[in-house]
Amino acid sequence: MKIVRSVSGARAAVRLARTDGVTRVGLVPTMGALHDGHLSLVRAAQHGSDLVVMSIFVNPKQFTELSDLERYPRQEAADAALAEAARVDILFAPEPSELYPDGFATTVHVGGPLTQTLEAAGRGPEHFDGVATVVAKLLLAVDADTAYFGQKDAQQVMVVRRMVADLSIPTEIVACPTVRDADGLAMSSRNVRLSAEERAQAAAIPRALEAAETAFALGETRVEHVHARVVAVLTAGGIAPEYVAFVDADSFVPVAEIAGPVLCAIAARVGAVRLIDNTLLTPPDVIEEH
Amino acid sequence: MKIVRSVSGARAAVRLARTDGVTRVGLVPTMGALHDGHLSLVRAAQHGSDLVVMSIFVNPKQFTELSDLERYPRQEAADAALAEAARVDILFAPEPSELYPDGFATTVHVGGPLTQTLEAAGRGPEHFDGVATVVAKLLLAVDADTAYFGQKDAQQVMVVRRMVADLSIPTEIVACPTVRDADGLAMSSRNVRLSAEERAQAAAIPRALEAAETAFALGETRVEHVHARVVAVLTAGGIAPEYVAFVDADSFVPVAEIAGPVLCAIAARVGAVRLIDNTLLTPPDVIEEH
Repeated sequence: MKIVRSVSGARAAVRLARTDGVTRVGLVPTMGALHDGHLSLVRAAQHGSDLVVMSIFVNPKQFTELSDLERYPRQEAADAALAEAARVDILFAPEPSELYPDGFATTVHVGGPLTQTLEAAGRGPEHFDGVATVVAKLLLAVDADTAYFGQKDAQQVMVVRRMVADLSIPTEIVACPTVRDADGLAMSSRNVRLSAEERAQAAAIPRALEAAETAFALGETRVEHVHARVVAVLTAGGIAPEYVAFVDADSFVPVAEIAGPVLCAIAARVGAVRLIDNTLLTPPDVIEEH
Repeated sequence: MKIVRSVSGARAAVRLARTDGVTRVGLVPTMGALHDGHLSLVRAAQHGSDLVVMSIFVNPKQFTELSDLERYPRQEAADAALAEAARVDILFAPEPSELYPDGFATTVHVGGPLTQTLEAAGRGPEHFDGVATVVAKLLLAVDADTAYFGQKDAQQVMVVRRMVADLSIPTEIVACPTVRDADGLAMSSRNVRLSAEERAQAAAIPRALEAAETAFALGETRVEHVHARVVAVLTAGGIAPEYVAFVDADSFVPVAEIAGPVLCAIAARVGAVRLIDNTLLTPPDVIEEH
């Protein structure tokens, strides 16, 4: 595995690989603190691409709380070992000063309903600007044909899809299923900050999503009723959610009825850790385009 | 010359050319109403690239006055003939609905002093957002190795350079010298809207820039004094400028002394037409990096 730290180094490594016959470059963008969710993205990239680049960059522009940025887990040596064991070809691990040198002045902003619901309130209006800006830059720096994201960050995936389409960035965006621990909790780098007690509490989040799936599978399409089930499970588990939202899976506009694919999304603080998770509710006769 | 109207058509045409051995794709982005300034960009592109793409797109996002957008000259058949005669290989002429389809929601914003001086006041804060967004999209749509811009729009060139560097867009930006008519007036698509009388008046703008060059060549480095010369020539010609500015050629921060490369820039309305022009004042011992 080659480790590169600069945009020019990443670009040169990819160009060299293309000269050697690589035709499909896959990027797995991460903020490090790798877990099985990330490694499932690497496997997807190996399936769809013939060169796998992983980026590790804790992007200061997408953190709106300094304390969250400071406490974000960093473990570069361990991450490099995990990436190498997973047969990542190129690890791109730049410093913030490399991606955002003095004089950096550009922001990629995605507007509309997509960035005004769900995470917008809790994470601040600049969060998705930071995501869109760094993802645009990473895709272009490594000349990615495909990039792989986790469906756990469903809103992020849609913001990236919108940005890539709008700017005609020639990269295909692939969303991969959320990977869960045995207790159902979605894998997240932030989970390591949960105490054992908090961890047990957090498992109410996937249970609440399952309750939504069950209610919907049994024929309940009224959001009001499914919402009540979800909140009941969270409350029983000792969790006061920041939001429980039902939005159209494409536009992210809130819906009252589950007629097309609807994203049921939850955000909740457990102790000091903010967790998000979601599930897609798709009527059986709707053909899913994602 | 191949004419394409869609992003996918442009991308396919460029890919095909690369398959046939093209290695350097040059883009000349225009808003049509072609004149010798544009054709000098085509010649520069032919010198530096082996496939020349010209785009013609009157970009609604960079117009802040609807009347200016509506009156902007459009002459697509004549432009296509001029482009073909100039041996442009691919003409990319999309409709607004192709570049900005329903749901389009992304803005590329360049902040800092670069977009807060000179044209920012007269053209509105969204002007350079519109420029940065469409140029990013055009560069990526045609996979340009190099793109050619006129130095007349000096601030636009710097905004594009900043955006391309910040987002790691793999395109080299080349600024080409301003092309002037016999009376010194910088070529502009808007010049056709000048009456004969206004045209004679407008020629005071290049005379004023020459006065700045002469004063500087004779040893005057105090902006206050050079500024007074420029204003005197404009006033004598019957022109009340919107601005006469002296800014650092890289940062666009106003200067009081011409110690490094300084851009002397003028904007003025002549009749209903807003004209801009500039000249670069470079001390002889300063090595120019542009």
